Amino acid sequence: MKALWLENQKLELREVPKPDRPNEALIRIRKAGICSTDLEMVKGYYPFTGIPGHEFVGEVVDAPDRSWIGQRVVGEINVVCGTCESCLNERPTHCENRTVLGISNRNGVFAEYTTLPLENLYRVPDSVSDEMAIFTEPLAAALEIQQQIQIEQADRVLLVGAGRLGQLIAQTLALAGCNLHVLARHPFQQNLLTARGINLISEAEINSGKWDIVIEATGSPDGFNLARKAVRPRGTMVLKSTYEGEMSVNISSIVVDEITVLGSRCGPFESALQLLESGAVDPSVLMTAKYSLGEVIEAFKHASQPGVLKIYIEM
Amino acid sequence: MKALWLENQKLELREVPKPDRPNEALIRIRKAGICSTDLEMVKGYYPFTGIPGHEFVGEVVDAPDRSWIGQRVVGEINVVCGTCESCLNERPTHCENRTVLGISNRNGVFAEYTTLPLENLYRVPDSVSDEMAIFTEPLAAALEIQQQIQIEQADRVLLVGAGRLGQLIAQTLALAGCNLHVLARHPFQQNLLTARGINLISEAEINSGKWDIVIEATGSPDGFNLARKAVRPRGTMVLKSTYEGEMSVNISSIVVDEITVLGSRCGPFESALQLLESGAVDPSVLMTAKYSLGEVIEAFKHASQPGVLKIYIEM
Repeated sequence: MKALWLENQKLELREVPKPDRPNEALIRIRKAGICSTDLEMVKGYYPFTGIPGHEFVGEVVDAPDRSWIGQRVVGEINVVCGTCESCLNERPTHCENRTVLGISNRNGVFAEYTTLPLENLYRVPDSVSDEMAIFTEPLAAALEIQQQIQIEQADRVLLVGAGRLGQLIAQTLALAGCNLHVLARHPFQQNLLTARGINLISEAEINSGKWDIVIEATGSPDGFNLARKAVRPRGTMVLKSTYEGEMSVNISSIVVDEITVLGSRCGPFESALQLLESGAVDPSVLMTAKYSLGEVIEAFKHASQPGVLKIYIEM
Repeated sequence: MKALWLENQKLELREVPKPDRPNEALIRIRKAGICSTDLEMVKGYYPFTGIPGHEFVGEVVDAPDRSWIGQRVVGEINVVCGTCESCLNERPTHCENRTVLGISNRNGVFAEYTTLPLENLYRVPDSVSDEMAIFTEPLAAALEIQQQIQIEQADRVLLVGAGRLGQLIAQTLALAGCNLHVLARHPFQQNLLTARGINLISEAEINSGKWDIVIEATGSPDGFNLARKAVRPRGTMVLKSTYEGEMSVNISSIVVDEITVLGSRCGPFESALQLLESGAVDPSVLMTAKYSLGEVIEAFKHASQPGVLKIYIEM
């Protein structure tokens, strides 16, 4: 089958054997989105060799349980052992023996086919289009914040960054009914937010030490430092992005102000699908462009340009 | 009066005017302890000019409410405005306009007298000796951890560091009944812990990613990194010490493992006094040496030697 291959920070479209894991579902990929993590892997932030890609919607074409065949599905990206301490303590996304679709020890979805265990699959409701279903994984990641902390109506919540993930976080937090403001750099990011009635704020308007909850979604040291300054004593900083290499941080200020810093990663697929079905969020506004699998390398180039939102591949 | 004066990282014993704040209690200092923060101020980590010192027990000799006169007291070190957002939201130790005894914009206790508002004072129960009462402030700081997070009996708790504050943290956590282990560098630190039946652990025995709660009380980058490696996914790192300058940190690992990092500073005086009164903790084992106010500079030199626990000054 045709697949995108990543090796030594080089992308190549090549012919590879169709995957064959009899214990897993064989999924024909319909559409797949390019995520910041994919771009970071190409830059060499994570060591990965193989087929990248983890945001997808596809169709089951073979499965140990044949009732799944023909189903349109999305898939939880962490494939877990079920027996390690993390799995036994209801932290499956932190499985010590996990492989991660297109990210760690498992080929991903920029290909004609992929495989996943049946327990990773979620049927996509008919009313959710393929274009929307691609967003299940990042939307779940956005929803993880509210799995981790309770956000009260009166909370002053600042979101720093309004890129791919930031937009989804903004849309989900707006539903929480809190006092939300978003720092968005680019005018087109700002327009997407104002169109949904979400409040913008400029860097100059952000009061230091006045925000109950600050969510950092830029992945840059500047964003981190701005978030740190904004959060109030005993407030919470939620980190939704990874950072390149190590970062120089004033940890003492976190101690003195008794800040809670919370890392946040993968979230609940079921809630994400329900939210897509309800129409309460609309990720489709993030679509920038569509490419074919044959054009996937060009698509990566496009996605890596500053300010581009979601690029997806149609197989 | 005689007082220790800190200016440009130099300590000097000098004659200064007796403090005169009619709205506050005038306190004759009986005993005062040297804390790591005092030593760090001398090293220039914090800008402070004036009389250092904040751990004390004293006797009220004058006060706006004369019923306090003659009382033996300890004092909460944060003097607050009562009207800022932090004060109005029950975070007085984070008052935006606070002065801090011997640390920030307020003379401290290495002197014959100091002053504090009456609302900062706590009467010391008769059964608590002067030597024990000095420990109220650091013991309160140790207790702050359990104000911030709930520690369950089954929790695997690792304490990294067993110096002045670490010993008090160990004693208070041991009362929480959790599965506690302490990494203590020096044999005399280890002996104090084993004498109380507290489990030790060596660095080689610490499993990576297996501890529910890790408390960092070394203030060193090595201690921080060790604590980070030890804590399990979705576990909690409590930071009880400040660090010199900025530190290089792998923030991405905190995001990927969804760690909670929690800064922790001043704590509840009332609980600390109750604990001292009950005899459930025994800080007196930390006493290394006693000096007079005239010998205070020598006392600082002694306190700054590696592995020394509590040095105190008797006025």
